[in-house]
Amino acid sequence: MSPPILLAMPLAARLRERLDGIYDVHGPFSPVTPDAVPQAARGARALITLGGHRTDRAMMDALPELGLIACYGTGFEGVDVEEAARRGILVTHAKDANATSVAEFAMGLVIAAARDMGRGERDLRAGKWRTIESMGLVPGLAGQRMGVYGLGAIGMKIATRAAAFEMEIGYHGRAPKAGVGFAYHPTLLSLAEWCDVLVVAVRASAETRHAVNAEVLAALGRKGVVVNIARGSVIDEAALVEALEQGVIHGAGLDVFEHEPAIPERLLAVPNAVLTPHIAAFTTLAQRVQQTLVLESLAAFFAGETPSNLVAA
Amino acid sequence: MSPPILLAMPLAARLRERLDGIYDVHGPFSPVTPDAVPQAARGARALITLGGHRTDRAMMDALPELGLIACYGTGFEGVDVEEAARRGILVTHAKDANATSVAEFAMGLVIAAARDMGRGERDLRAGKWRTIESMGLVPGLAGQRMGVYGLGAIGMKIATRAAAFEMEIGYHGRAPKAGVGFAYHPTLLSLAEWCDVLVVAVRASAETRHAVNAEVLAALGRKGVVVNIARGSVIDEAALVEALEQGVIHGAGLDVFEHEPAIPERLLAVPNAVLTPHIAAFTTLAQRVQQTLVLESLAAFFAGETPSNLVAA
Repeated sequence: MSPPILLAMPLAARLRERLDGIYDVHGPFSPVTPDAVPQAARGARALITLGGHRTDRAMMDALPELGLIACYGTGFEGVDVEEAARRGILVTHAKDANATSVAEFAMGLVIAAARDMGRGERDLRAGKWRTIESMGLVPGLAGQRMGVYGLGAIGMKIATRAAAFEMEIGYHGRAPKAGVGFAYHPTLLSLAEWCDVLVVAVRASAETRHAVNAEVLAALGRKGVVVNIARGSVIDEAALVEALEQGVIHGAGLDVFEHEPAIPERLLAVPNAVLTPHIAAFTTLAQRVQQTLVLESLAAFFAGETPSNLVAA
Repeated sequence: MSPPILLAMPLAARLRERLDGIYDVHGPFSPVTPDAVPQAARGARALITLGGHRTDRAMMDALPELGLIACYGTGFEGVDVEEAARRGILVTHAKDANATSVAEFAMGLVIAAARDMGRGERDLRAGKWRTIESMGLVPGLAGQRMGVYGLGAIGMKIATRAAAFEMEIGYHGRAPKAGVGFAYHPTLLSLAEWCDVLVVAVRASAETRHAVNAEVLAALGRKGVVVNIARGSVIDEAALVEALEQGVIHGAGLDVFEHEPAIPERLLAVPNAVLTPHIAAFTTLAQRVQQTLVLESLAAFFAGETPSNLVAA
């Protein structure tokens, strides 16, 4: 008999077909809630979900046979990892699978926001040509300073790309990284004061929630740009909207939002932000690797082996 | 008596003030035509203009005292350089002054076009969130091939930045460049067949006019992206619109157009292009250097010395 598994969300056809060939697949439910799990799916031994979905004690109660929570992407902030550990439920994720794709997208947001590409394009499509006088000048990237908040796999790839643009790099995180040539800042505030472009690449957690607040944005300053490809919760979105509206900072590039898919009307209305719907990892490369990692973690789990991509405690 | 000079277009206040302190400044006329030159300005010994403006035999006839044509930017395609040489009129330009700013902007267009940022943003602002299913996947940059058409100062800076994105680089130009590690393609067609992203960084000339035509776009192919930060004349714009509409290529990123500031309505309507109003050099860095070069070329000319930034024959 095929082992039962549950999908919290729809999957790419290629991955779905592979899973159907091996497992008794229930779902998708998007997103799945404890109440929404039908009787037939309650015996699921593995759950495939997204880091942003809530996989808490109630959800684990609803799935008493659960032994594996496989997060499709890199994030796992919605999973109660400690509760899972107490119950002996393994939690896996995509690790650095999408780092390259997310880093290149982040640089696109940096350039678009710093070089006013959004404003230029909107004006052009509205029939308004722009001259130096009407467009104004921006500092550009070369010679400017990038501050990376969270120098993990994604942050590091952003930093190396930015260095090729002749930017100076600094970073902040819980601790300095050994063997890294970029300047460490002990606080996010000090990083924001120092840099021109602040890129958020830190993991979402209670500790990093609203870390980029009004004070940090004020420190970034009037010519500053903030880019977020991590999680919306890291930025105080209300403070960011205020800073963009008031010219406290120059602009923003955001691929993630605090309450996806809901975006505040005021944020949608600001002209000095480039806003994309969490698509930084939507590349063939990133998805292939993420799909493979889901298949491998399930195969390892059902073979009684330890998956290679367990989340770090 | 201050030497008379003529401006073909408005200049930044800072540069204009510096010129007013030294010269008897006429204009600006935007753009200047032979008929529009008033009697008082006909004695101008230097003309400050843009490469895209027409500075032909008739214009030189209208300015019989002319000894210097100073192009503000890098381009000088509107200047009849041979006629100027026959008359002993020097022609200067900004050389590589804006190469860094243009190259970083070009990479922004590459990422925006290849990663469907424009479509993502339009949908998001229209209230449509995007999932993998509705957005679809793109190849991304890493592991893809970039073809640079014209490996001058700008093309080289684009290539080195793209290399940091783990792209493979090839190029086409009149001849292979010595000491360059990128693969040379003897024809533009061969480069387009080979690459995934084609970046136009070649100088505008009779030879390069409409070089990127329907055949080249077909060779680039259905997943291909074309970016142009050089001059609109290098691409057959009608063929490009057709290719974008029909899905012959995936997308385009264009900062320059064939008949600026006029953009065809059909091009403005295509969703799979990122369009900006020739703003790639609008940075403080590029403009400062360009302003300095104009001042230096005038100073050298009026001192009877050879300006350092004469256009190459």
